[in-house]
Amino acid sequence: MKPLHEAGIDDIQQALKSGDVSATEIARQTLENIEKANPAINAYTHITHERMLSEAAKVDKLRASGAELPPLAAVPYAVKNLLDVTGEVTLAGASLNSSNPVAKEDAWTVARLAQNGALLSGMLNMDAYAYGFTTENSHYGATRNPRDLERVAGGSSGGSAAAVAAGLVQFTLGSDTNGSIRVPSSLSGILGLKPTFGRLSRRGSQPFVASLDHLGPMARSSSDLSLVYDALQGYDSADAFQAHKPTVETFSQLTRGQQGLRTAVLGGFFSTWCDDNAKEAVKRVAQALEAQEEVEMPQAELARSAAFILTASEGGNQYLPQLRKIPEQFEPLSRERLLAGAMIPAAWYVQAQRFRHQFQQQVLPIFEHWDILIAPSTPCPATLIGQESIEINGTSLPTRASMGMLTQPISFLGLPVVSVPLTTASGLPIGLQLIAPPWREDLCLRAAWALEQQGIVSVKSSLIG
Amino acid sequence: MKPLHEAGIDDIQQALKSGDVSATEIARQTLENIEKANPAINAYTHITHERMLSEAAKVDKLRASGAELPPLAAVPYAVKNLLDVTGEVTLAGASLNSSNPVAKEDAWTVARLAQNGALLSGMLNMDAYAYGFTTENSHYGATRNPRDLERVAGGSSGGSAAAVAAGLVQFTLGSDTNGSIRVPSSLSGILGLKPTFGRLSRRGSQPFVASLDHLGPMARSSSDLSLVYDALQGYDSADAFQAHKPTVETFSQLTRGQQGLRTAVLGGFFSTWCDDNAKEAVKRVAQALEAQEEVEMPQAELARSAAFILTASEGGNQYLPQLRKIPEQFEPLSRERLLAGAMIPAAWYVQAQRFRHQFQQQVLPIFEHWDILIAPSTPCPATLIGQESIEINGTSLPTRASMGMLTQPISFLGLPVVSVPLTTASGLPIGLQLIAPPWREDLCLRAAWALEQQGIVSVKSSLIG
Repeated sequence: MKPLHEAGIDDIQQALKSGDVSATEIARQTLENIEKANPAINAYTHITHERMLSEAAKVDKLRASGAELPPLAAVPYAVKNLLDVTGEVTLAGASLNSSNPVAKEDAWTVARLAQNGALLSGMLNMDAYAYGFTTENSHYGATRNPRDLERVAGGSSGGSAAAVAAGLVQFTLGSDTNGSIRVPSSLSGILGLKPTFGRLSRRGSQPFVASLDHLGPMARSSSDLSLVYDALQGYDSADAFQAHKPTVETFSQLTRGQQGLRTAVLGGFFSTWCDDNAKEAVKRVAQALEAQEEVEMPQAELARSAAFILTASEGGNQYLPQLRKIPEQFEPLSRERLLAGAMIPAAWYVQAQRFRHQFQQQVLPIFEHWDILIAPSTPCPATLIGQESIEINGTSLPTRASMGMLTQPISFLGLPVVSVPLTTASGLPIGLQLIAPPWREDLCLRAAWALEQQGIVSVKSSLIG
Repeated sequence: MKPLHEAGIDDIQQALKSGDVSATEIARQTLENIEKANPAINAYTHITHERMLSEAAKVDKLRASGAELPPLAAVPYAVKNLLDVTGEVTLAGASLNSSNPVAKEDAWTVARLAQNGALLSGMLNMDAYAYGFTTENSHYGATRNPRDLERVAGGSSGGSAAAVAAGLVQFTLGSDTNGSIRVPSSLSGILGLKPTFGRLSRRGSQPFVASLDHLGPMARSSSDLSLVYDALQGYDSADAFQAHKPTVETFSQLTRGQQGLRTAVLGGFFSTWCDDNAKEAVKRVAQALEAQEEVEMPQAELARSAAFILTASEGGNQYLPQLRKIPEQFEPLSRERLLAGAMIPAAWYVQAQRFRHQFQQQVLPIFEHWDILIAPSTPCPATLIGQESIEINGTSLPTRASMGMLTQPISFLGLPVVSVPLTTASGLPIGLQLIAPPWREDLCLRAAWALEQQGIVSVKSSLIG
């Protein structure tokens, strides 16, 4: 078999079936790689050593019995530390959660992956509470970008992006409220899938903004992304926020067809607020996907403001009891934002929700003409750790709030997106959002696959240490 | 035919078919009755004289042609003045709307009634913005209770209740956010139906609290209520808030079966915060419906508080632009409440919505054991116009806010309710809520019918003037 950091899920399945490698060997090698590389990138806050070996032993027992193996058998992965893992404390990036009781059961998504044979290697660093785009966590340290260790990995799912970019695991789970899967995927040079709002069960994940939170996978190829996404499908009657869609699609079967996609580039706000690296990347993707038209999404800037209001209000509500009691234990980078958010006038919050509905009604008809809209995932490639501002469109903007400015309007709409990375002239990666109408994740994955076929997207891992 | 103020919808249909009376005669008689009685009760803010005669002429033309008549042919009705009527200004009880352009089309519900042959007699008085429980409108005057002209008719659909109680029309439409159909039905001694939240389209009605607003019919018998409710069924794809339920039920066919209902009385909050008149009425209904157990609905008081927060926040948001520009034109009885509501911290609003969901999850299992829960619609019978406080449970409470204290937790849950009136020892009526699980309006109507069969509920109109 290829070295683990170069192997895809298909490679692992073949090697496993042919007897080239055992699940236990994969688990041991993964744990060794993590121990070597993690000190340099600080992606993991906890390594689930025992669980990984025990899950691997189960797979090997199944192999020995000659039974058919589940689709993700022996595939190493890790999860953002806001997802419940049985017997572990769910941190959500916050030291004030560190004395909480351990989780009694796996999050719904983690349980699905376990059922599908995947091997959990640990829990990953993030911006505290998922509030931030850089994973500069004051209590657990900054996660470093495997593509350039002086730079941020992006956030809030920064550990999830770094672990995949470094080649430590085949995939990770992240969460995306305003861009927290797409931003770190962009800055760390990997693929990330933000599903349609309401598609995946969020049970057993620490909420941040119930109106906007999504869970989703991050990986190094559209094929791996599809296989993992298949395993995450299913209706969870105990999750009140999941939209009931009776048909479970098998994305890995759907996403390798011929092209024939109607694609366009998002102009206006999305082509204004990004640098030349992003513009150049859009051009290359547009050419490869034969996108010739530019489409406007009026009021995208207002959508971003409304997303900020929902985030601040619901985030503020979520943490208000603890803000009242133990403010000193909060992440200093977001404490005041949470407090201010709780005090926003209710009329603003209500107006933001009303606008969201109106904006959705206005934007959805665009998809009568287009299957995929293309926009940058971030205004620019990864900034240096500690860099407070970026210069975009001749304007100096605060880094931590602005890295998500192009993702916020899209998650506000609830649309599915795959972010694919391109390498810029600077050598750093930047991500492009491939945006589809609701429930059409297959279109995003198909477009990503087409870009891989043409060599426009090609992710190598940067094994560190 | 019986005199119009005693006739039910069935009587009108029979008389029309037999040729006893024409639609035009019905319309003329109705308009005459309104002209005579309205000055005493102030139920109407506008009489649609021409439209009524023209709708009647259409029915008579249809009769002359020998075609089958629609189910509400020649049935006189009127609507709360927050529903759009083509060519008329929608006031929503507020003089600041009086210079608005006229409505271009009927509200969805009004259009349905027109299609079903009903005759619109006019638009009815209400508390300004639907914010109040007494219809003491500073700009359009108080509506007087046909059962005692010194007393309030209840609100906010006070005109809708008074017009039916006075026998001026066979039915009216009202709206209910926190009790605005059930409270005036109770105080004016008629039946009122608050549907399951999301059941009827609200298109073309002036919103007050999008999270809580319901439209519904008010009438003098369960039979008339059912026939009107049938006409109001149907899915309106243009109403974003309507919950899509594919099966349209025909309630008039369902609601006259034998009894067999599993009924219980709501205790705790609902049996504490009402006077002896209400308690006595609950006893009589419980006996008639063979309800032997008392059921608790824990946290009902908290539900009421949460309903207040949603109301103040969304109502405040709705009127904020005008509050900023023309505060002096606002109803003095609710201006400060609206302003304060807009400034509620967003964290409270979010918490109220979160509690609503949790409360629904907690209450719905009660209906595994019960079909109908019984509770008073108001803490006491109608108060005198201008009476600022009521004495309930040894406590002096503000009248205008407290008349809905027993209805608020139920609409917060979104449950369907029929309020039926009983006559108390004082001679004044009081209403009882017959509360069913979501989408089971048929159970409410069946219980109301059973009470009519036993003579416990029997509504006569009080023709005034």
